[in-house]
Amino acid sequence: MATYDISTIGEGQIRFTVNSGERLMFTRSVSMNPACSEANVAGLLAQLGRNALWTSSLPKGDLGDYILTEYRSVGVDMKTMVRKSGGRTALYFMEPGAGPMPANVIYDRDWTSFRSTGIEDYDWSTMLDTRLMFLTGITASLTDTTAEVVRYAADHAVERGAKLALDVNFRRKLWSGERAREVLTPIAEEADVLFCSIADAEKVFKITGTPEEVTAELMKRFEPEYVVSTNHMEGPYLRTHEGFTEYHTTPVPVIDRPGAGDSFVAATLHGYLSGEIEEGVKWGQRASEFAITHKGDLTRIRPDELHIPLGTDIDR
Amino acid sequence: MATYDISTIGEGQIRFTVNSGERLMFTRSVSMNPACSEANVAGLLAQLGRNALWTSSLPKGDLGDYILTEYRSVGVDMKTMVRKSGGRTALYFMEPGAGPMPANVIYDRDWTSFRSTGIEDYDWSTMLDTRLMFLTGITASLTDTTAEVVRYAADHAVERGAKLALDVNFRRKLWSGERAREVLTPIAEEADVLFCSIADAEKVFKITGTPEEVTAELMKRFEPEYVVSTNHMEGPYLRTHEGFTEYHTTPVPVIDRPGAGDSFVAATLHGYLSGEIEEGVKWGQRASEFAITHKGDLTRIRPDELHIPLGTDIDR
Amino acid sequence: MATYDISTIGEGQIRFTVNSGERLMFTRSVSMNPACSEANVAGLLAQLGRNALWTSSLPKGDLGDYILTEYRSVGVDMKTMVRKSGGRTALYFMEPGAGPMPANVIYDRDWTSFRSTGIEDYDWSTMLDTRLMFLTGITASLTDTTAEVVRYAADHAVERGAKLALDVNFRRKLWSGERAREVLTPIAEEADVLFCSIADAEKVFKITGTPEEVTAELMKRFEPEYVVSTNHMEGPYLRTHEGFTEYHTTPVPVIDRPGAGDSFVAATLHGYLSGEIEEGVKWGQRASEFAITHKGDLTRIRPDELHIPLGTDIDR
Amino acid sequence: MATYDISTIGEGQIRFTVNSGERLMFTRSVSMNPACSEANVAGLLAQLGRNALWTSSLPKGDLGDYILTEYRSVGVDMKTMVRKSGGRTALYFMEPGAGPMPANVIYDRDWTSFRSTGIEDYDWSTMLDTRLMFLTGITASLTDTTAEVVRYAADHAVERGAKLALDVNFRRKLWSGERAREVLTPIAEEADVLFCSIADAEKVFKITGTPEEVTAELMKRFEPEYVVSTNHMEGPYLRTHEGFTEYHTTPVPVIDRPGAGDSFVAATLHGYLSGEIEEGVKWGQRASEFAITHKGDLTRIRPDELHIPLGTDIDR
Amino acid sequence: MATYDISTIGEGQIRFTVNSGERLMFTRSVSMNPACSEANVAGLLAQLGRNALWTSSLPKGDLGDYILTEYRSVGVDMKTMVRKSGGRTALYFMEPGAGPMPANVIYDRDWTSFRSTGIEDYDWSTMLDTRLMFLTGITASLTDTTAEVVRYAADHAVERGAKLALDVNFRRKLWSGERAREVLTPIAEEADVLFCSIADAEKVFKITGTPEEVTAELMKRFEPEYVVSTNHMEGPYLRTHEGFTEYHTTPVPVIDRPGAGDSFVAATLHGYLSGEIEEGVKWGQRASEFAITHKGDLTRIRPDELHIPLGTDIDR
Amino acid sequence: MATYDISTIGEGQIRFTVNSGERLMFTRSVSMNPACSEANVAGLLAQLGRNALWTSSLPKGDLGDYILTEYRSVGVDMKTMVRKSGGRTALYFMEPGAGPMPANVIYDRDWTSFRSTGIEDYDWSTMLDTRLMFLTGITASLTDTTAEVVRYAADHAVERGAKLALDVNFRRKLWSGERAREVLTPIAEEADVLFCSIADAEKVFKITGTPEEVTAELMKRFEPEYVVSTNHMEGPYLRTHEGFTEYHTTPVPVIDRPGAGDSFVAATLHGYLSGEIEEGVKWGQRASEFAITHKGDLTRIRPDELHIPLGTDIDR
Repeated sequence: MATYDISTIGEGQIRFTVNSGERLMFTRSVSMNPACSEANVAGLLAQLGRNALWTSSLPKGDLGDYILTEYRSVGVDMKTMVRKSGGRTALYFMEPGAGPMPANVIYDRDWTSFRSTGIEDYDWSTMLDTRLMFLTGITASLTDTTAEVVRYAADHAVERGAKLALDVNFRRKLWSGERAREVLTPIAEEADVLFCSIADAEKVFKITGTPEEVTAELMKRFEPEYVVSTNHMEGPYLRTHEGFTEYHTTPVPVIDRPGAGDSFVAATLHGYLSGEIEEGVKWGQRASEFAITHKGDLTRIRPDELHIPLGTDIDR
Repeated sequence: MATYDISTIGEGQIRFTVNSGERLMFTRSVSMNPACSEANVAGLLAQLGRNALWTSSLPKGDLGDYILTEYRSVGVDMKTMVRKSGGRTALYFMEPGAGPMPANVIYDRDWTSFRSTGIEDYDWSTMLDTRLMFLTGITASLTDTTAEVVRYAADHAVERGAKLALDVNFRRKLWSGERAREVLTPIAEEADVLFCSIADAEKVFKITGTPEEVTAELMKRFEPEYVVSTNHMEGPYLRTHEGFTEYHTTPVPVIDRPGAGDSFVAATLHGYLSGEIEEGVKWGQRASEFAITHKGDLTRIRPDELHIPLGTDIDR
Repeated sequence: MATYDISTIGEGQIRFTVNSGERLMFTRSVSMNPACSEANVAGLLAQLGRNALWTSSLPKGDLGDYILTEYRSVGVDMKTMVRKSGGRTALYFMEPGAGPMPANVIYDRDWTSFRSTGIEDYDWSTMLDTRLMFLTGITASLTDTTAEVVRYAADHAVERGAKLALDVNFRRKLWSGERAREVLTPIAEEADVLFCSIADAEKVFKITGTPEEVTAELMKRFEPEYVVSTNHMEGPYLRTHEGFTEYHTTPVPVIDRPGAGDSFVAATLHGYLSGEIEEGVKWGQRASEFAITHKGDLTRIRPDELHIPLGTDIDR
Repeated sequence: MATYDISTIGEGQIRFTVNSGERLMFTRSVSMNPACSEANVAGLLAQLGRNALWTSSLPKGDLGDYILTEYRSVGVDMKTMVRKSGGRTALYFMEPGAGPMPANVIYDRDWTSFRSTGIEDYDWSTMLDTRLMFLTGITASLTDTTAEVVRYAADHAVERGAKLALDVNFRRKLWSGERAREVLTPIAEEADVLFCSIADAEKVFKITGTPEEVTAELMKRFEPEYVVSTNHMEGPYLRTHEGFTEYHTTPVPVIDRPGAGDSFVAATLHGYLSGEIEEGVKWGQRASEFAITHKGDLTRIRPDELHIPLGTDIDR
Repeated sequence: MATYDISTIGEGQIRFTVNSGERLMFTRSVSMNPACSEANVAGLLAQLGRNALWTSSLPKGDLGDYILTEYRSVGVDMKTMVRKSGGRTALYFMEPGAGPMPANVIYDRDWTSFRSTGIEDYDWSTMLDTRLMFLTGITASLTDTTAEVVRYAADHAVERGAKLALDVNFRRKLWSGERAREVLTPIAEEADVLFCSIADAEKVFKITGTPEEVTAELMKRFEPEYVVSTNHMEGPYLRTHEGFTEYHTTPVPVIDRPGAGDSFVAATLHGYLSGEIEEGVKWGQRASEFAITHKGDLTRIRPDELHIPLGTDIDR
Repeated sequence: MATYDISTIGEGQIRFTVNSGERLMFTRSVSMNPACSEANVAGLLAQLGRNALWTSSLPKGDLGDYILTEYRSVGVDMKTMVRKSGGRTALYFMEPGAGPMPANVIYDRDWTSFRSTGIEDYDWSTMLDTRLMFLTGITASLTDTTAEVVRYAADHAVERGAKLALDVNFRRKLWSGERAREVLTPIAEEADVLFCSIADAEKVFKITGTPEEVTAELMKRFEPEYVVSTNHMEGPYLRTHEGFTEYHTTPVPVIDRPGAGDSFVAATLHGYLSGEIEEGVKWGQRASEFAITHKGDLTRIRPDELHIPLGTDIDR
């Protein structure tokens, strides 16, 4: 029996967010929170009772400690964390926007420790001791070194009998569609659960069509157990070997968007780990709806909150 | 001529509210405000120029003083306040929620001074010197002792020739429908104005039907002068001996919900005290709409604001 | 070639704004920002790369300095600023309102320095050295002295060959429609660009009808090059000698309203100065939409933001 | 028996205070609180259980209401309040300073309602129904009209058998020493308790010397029952017909200075009203020390806090 | 080899703290933080690299979760935590005071889950698997049940060969000196390290004299390995079998006092666990000095910060 | 006659500061302000009425704009600003510390635009059109490229007849004393005013002794017109050809330290530019005392505030 329910690897970052009603060019204070797509997934699964391991590589000192404190507070295991003496901590700045003013993200994540941390730096015997390995295109996109690390994790996890989940999560500012296809194709082919939005399917894999068609083509090409997808505000969609399900979503007011997709992935995987991914996708919808009602990339949620009936008002 | 326009009794509380965008499980500051359904009614009536007396029983010390300061600031008379040396001050915590995340209320109001304060502790000669006695199911629900106090207030106010208004205000977490029916029935039978929502009519009095039918049945069963009701976001409804009126409400963005119902009751009673309850219900709608635009259980309103025409934008 | 692209004159003020969710009658802190319709126009044009001069008259000391710091920070030229030893600084208080609770503005702008500063106090040789003179009804409304100043600026700018833009911007609390018509008619007759809302056309010039009719009548009566108008949330409208254009606007969530109209005017004039007022009106729409998403009367905007395609979401 | 223990008259103001660590010329929010030297005295006495009446004249509307809410919240009786339709509300701005940077106060209190409210506007039968009339040089300094009001209050209170307390409280920016001497001399001659600092004794009455000499000369010249004085951070001093007492003060960290002097006066008068002014001066020291530990002009204090032994640390 | 370096038991609480410059009776927001003397000790030791177990009993739900999140974030192991369905969470309110205004603490910690949790509810096999058991008089003081729990922990830890540290930490508001002596004497007799202030030695054990005498008497009476003491701001003192050492402390500005004593104890025990308690007391001084510079009961400190030379200024 | 009174060059940065009472490892918001030693000097001189030019090289976009807005708001001329398409903006993080907890600075200023901007990128004809060129060791320390820029500026300014001021401002974390000596010696030899602390004299130039001796040796070695020095909290010292003056400083409470040294330099140079450097050093003391009372690296000061007599309290 594996020690961990889920093991994942990704770069810890710090987000600085301009307050609502202010502009970055004229602000005097910003909110600050730890961020990491993969750690967000581990963090929500830990809150839901799963044994979750997150591995990263961070500089020694306060900025790195800052990120660890957040994920440790919800019970993520970080015993495989690599701490480096040099290098930067990844940062990003966000102006949230409102109405027709779009959110504006400024990345400052070059020259970081994580980018140069290679296969040989990690403790694979611990990292691979898991029921499920969760990997993302974000980690793979950063450098050739991180692409190798992701490939290594995928190959060896599968070899050890773990399940593999891949979230394509394409970011135009980090790499090209061509490079993403080249790096992610062999990993997708090993994946048991493939998360890929309709938009990313086109940008990375050049697959177009209706959601039903796109997920069918992803299923055909990579042969995972499940394909999970979304189409902007529409969906989510679940493609299994048995068929295709479209779930209905209603729009939700946004207080803080980052992390909503990670919460969707985490709660879906929570269902998958219990053998009920159909239920998991519903939990994922609910988790992502809750995620945008509070600040921070990591969603804070109690397990029972996934079961609150829709339309519940104040109870007293 | 009675000294007070209105006299009421209820437990003062303190509310701690999580800031928008935060979760209770991870916050570092909360807003804090005095709360009390009955005092909110007295407080709005005082702002509208009525002579209003609120009676409660609170522990000596800062937490009790805190509650009194708020209601004193709008001119509520509290000369009958009982201060006890022991006991707790009632508290409650609220996470406001947003979108599909419902508000979450955690009560911490057991073992309080008010629960054990009995008929013999109060200054009835002052409390009964009023044109209108206002009582609620909340006060009656807390303990047998407070139920007796409410019954005593109702009986003796009526005996002294005062009018009686009862707000059923059923709270599932405080008592059962059966117990509520048992305690409130004799008081409802004495009431001149009965506030009872369509939902509470079913839960407490097992009356179901359309709003027109439910209010008719309430009128028939308890024979008040007026029945005032609401049905979630619909209504309000006014049932008089002459007939049934339904008022039209439009939805309003919510900044802070608690106290809106109390403001509705208060402004309706303001009309009742002037002999124009039909107008009062309209003021009540307006007062409850304004109530949710600012924080705190007590609504802060200038008398002339009840008369702002709907659809008024900024005037300069 | 004139030194300035635009020259304008108007009274600098300070706004105190009650925080959302609070009421003025019970608040303990207010936000504070410099304000001035004319300086807002100059300030946005300066951000868009125009050479903009703003002239005012302010008391010496911190309150006056406070206003200058804001507009200097975006590059407005203020070398013609008059500083007086006596008099008050104009203030106003705003409760923003929400939903059915309208915004409430309390002016405290009597007995100010600007009201008694006359033609002889200003440095006209610099102020008139401009391609475009921008004047408003607000400045003209304050006192007979300021009305004379506006008239002098209009007459001499035109005499020197500058273009003239007039924003009628009628404020009921500052003067009557009759007085406005008397003062503004000769200036409107000199104007090359006339900004006048459908509502102001009626209140000031007694012109009624559809937007197409009203702008046609304004064009006929005052013979400017362009008439630019709006009708509450509808419009904007552009009337040229060639015809009439109605632009389509979609509603936008309001975080802070003051200054949106000024941003519309500024970006429209930015187009006018480039010989493409039709494009300018579109920029104006966009600028005014952005204006209400952040606090302060002065809109903070980067030139490239005028060109963000509608419907852009976060890009990363 | 008189209805009130103390009756006083003075102008309600609003203070805007720059946050610590910021400068007025570059701030974006200010704290805001009601202020009034005379109301502060009434407000502390009300908290100490005295029946206190404060009379002022304020414009109708939110700014005036704002001031009343504060003093009503601690139980000051304001039934004689005059509300005017025109005129301004007195304001002042304060930069608190730190270390060698002195506090900076900018008054904006000209053209206010209070300045033109005369003897005929007030309800003297209620205002004079008091054991003690408390008057200050600040009220007398504003205009000839307010000087007449103060003189009228003094003369008629004494005539009705009330005691009279005068706080000289000289403000260089409001009037000259000569004018103060002329106006205050007849009032000081009627006073039972005279508050006059060593510095004010020189500026107003041209009395110099040691504190012992100055208070002796004040006693000789005006023949009150008591002279109470301070000398910057030294003192306080109490001069009775029996002799001279100097109290020892230790320096206290300042969080917010305004109102400390008023708290000293109030607690001293609390002792005077109980026939133990010697004890009252000690309470005054304590009250003024506590006053500067929290924000706002009105000191918030529980009666038992006057009796906390010096040197008490946290008790738990 | 034991699993834990330290194991401790105590009641988790939540502290609500009035902001500096405000008074509880008139505030609108309070800061909020988890608190627990024993968990603070475990939490600092965890940050210093020790394997620390904290056991408590808390109600299910958000308030209990809130406390756990804090201590989990620094790596405290809480696998023995008891969660109950009923009962209250312990709260306390603090007005920090300033200068001569002492801090004011209001406890609201009656009727809590922890008070009724008995020996049979805990997982002793895990809790006793430790090198050092740390117990306090606070836990012992709450009820007879908690006194039994503390006694059981002491007896069985010693029986299992663990070391025992006792912090007397007498709280007058929680129990009497007599009861404390009765309960704590047998535990002190088993202790290897005894923390007892000079004041507590008198109040609990009736031992008076100079610090040298008091610690000698404590050593003689209870025969621990070490006695560690303080005398208000003086000390600390270390009494070993070899002799007596007095350490020199300099006063430090206080931003937030609670938790400083716990940090002293924790860092001293850190030294004890390494076999160098003399060094540990120095670390304890440093840790407690740092503790009061930041908010919260739990001190946040990096291991290397214990070694910052005194007098270090900014390094850049 | 030169266009500018002062011209300087240095790297614009952004500072993120942890709030007082919080720790970086656990904070959720930080204050944010522009920073740049050389721009701070230019910024204070601009406020004092000098024509000041600051040159830097910053990336295009919001982070660069952010820095420019600050210095533009006080009137610094930045027409020679270089904006680059790539590269980072220099950042630094500061935990302010308190009492024995020293301030902690974390630099994140590698890989910035400024570091690779060379002599050929700057507009020297404008930059050298100045009465005084002001240069610092900080700019010289960053890379070989920036060292060349500083040397070029010094040589050509002197060649054009400008005066030269050098602030050694040694930063251990940026370069070694040996490299500093090598780079700065030829510049110091050209300088008219040399700012060098007693500590830097030792670290960079290996000069030790009393302040009188050290400044004498600096004067002898580099032959400037003036040597200005400080010794931690002592001094300042002025060495002229006529002799040595020591000024007396009193300690001041620190709210925000960064920028105090720059304010000292700026006000001293203000005196130098007026031919009264002795007076300037006094202004410098005052400016640096004021600097630490408000937040931000740039000191905000009115010219008349340099003349406030020491010991002035509130004036009203």
